[in-house]
Amino acid sequence: MTDRRPDPVQPADDAARRLARDLLGAARHAALSFTDPDTGTPGISRIAFGLDPDGCPLTLVSGLALHRRALETHPLAAVMVGEPGEKGDPLTHPRLMLRVAAEPVSRDAPEHLALRQKWLADHPKAQLYIDFPDFIFVRLRPIAALLNGGFASAYRLVPADLM
Amino acid sequence: MTDRRPDPVQPADDAARRLARDLLGAARHAALSFTDPDTGTPGISRIAFGLDPDGCPLTLVSGLALHRRALETHPLAAVMVGEPGEKGDPLTHPRLMLRVAAEPVSRDAPEHLALRQKWLADHPKAQLYIDFPDFIFVRLRPIAALLNGGFASAYRLVPADLM
Repeated sequence: MTDRRPDPVQPADDAARRLARDLLGAARHAALSFTDPDTGTPGISRIAFGLDPDGCPLTLVSGLALHRRALETHPLAAVMVGEPGEKGDPLTHPRLMLRVAAEPVSRDAPEHLALRQKWLADHPKAQLYIDFPDFIFVRLRPIAALLNGGFASAYRLVPADLM
Repeated sequence: MTDRRPDPVQPADDAARRLARDLLGAARHAALSFTDPDTGTPGISRIAFGLDPDGCPLTLVSGLALHRRALETHPLAAVMVGEPGEKGDPLTHPRLMLRVAAEPVSRDAPEHLALRQKWLADHPKAQLYIDFPDFIFVRLRPIAALLNGGFASAYRLVPADLM
C-alpha cells in the first residue's frame, strides 16, 4: 500500500532554507516528540527553545520534566517549530520538523557561559530560574529536517541547510 | 538519579478536568508525536484536530502525510493541544498531552456521516478536501493524559476525565 503513494517532498531550495532558518531563529518554544521512558511509546511536551551562538537548537530543561529523563534514556527525538497565526487554516502555516539527537551541556563546559548569555538575551524571563540547580541546557543537534510550507509544499533539509 | 527526583504531578481535580476539556474542545490543530516508520525513532507533525460527537479526539489525514503511514505501523502515539498566546512566557500557558491509540475510521463505517458533519461544523475550510479519496478520519483514543497548567502545576488524568 505504501509503495503506491507518491513522495510529495522536494529537495530544499534557497527559499526553503531561508524559511527554515527564519522559523528556527524566531522560535521561543517548540513541541518535543520523545520516547516515553516508562512505556517505550511516543511522548510529547512543550519546551523552551532557542539557538546557541553557532545556531544549533537548544532547550533549557528542569530536572522535574518527564522529557528530561526521556532524553537521558533515548537521546533521539524530534522537534517542531513554527506557530500558526490566529487566522486562517492552521495547516497552511509553515512549520519545521527536525529529527535531533539530544546532548546535555554540563554546567562546567567551557561554552556554558556563552550559552547562558545568548539564552538570556533571547528569553529574558528565564532569569527567574536559569540558575536553579536542576535546570540544564540540552542541545538538540539536527539530523534531518522537513519543512512544511502548507498543503503540497514540503521540503527535505539537511543540517547544513539550517545553520 | 531518577529516584531522587520528586513526582511533581498531582491527581486531577474538577478544575483540572474542566480545563482539560476546554483545551480539547477549543483545539482545531494539535502536535502529534509518533514513531517514524522508517527509522523507528520519534517523529512529529502538525495535525488537524477535533472531537467526534462522543467527545473522542479525531484527526482528518491525507494519505500523503508521513504520520498516516506511521500510525498504520505504530498506532500508539501522543498529542498535545493548547496554544500559547502572543504574550507572556509560553511555558506558563496550559497545555494537555494525551497518550493515544490511533484507530482509522472506514468511509463505510455507520458513524462516518456523523463524523463528517461534526468535523465540517468545526472546520468549515475542510469542505475543500474532506471528500478527496485519500483523506480519512483517524480516532485518537485517549489512554492517559497530563495537564500542564504552567510551572509546578501538573495533573494526571484518565480517559473518563476527558469525555
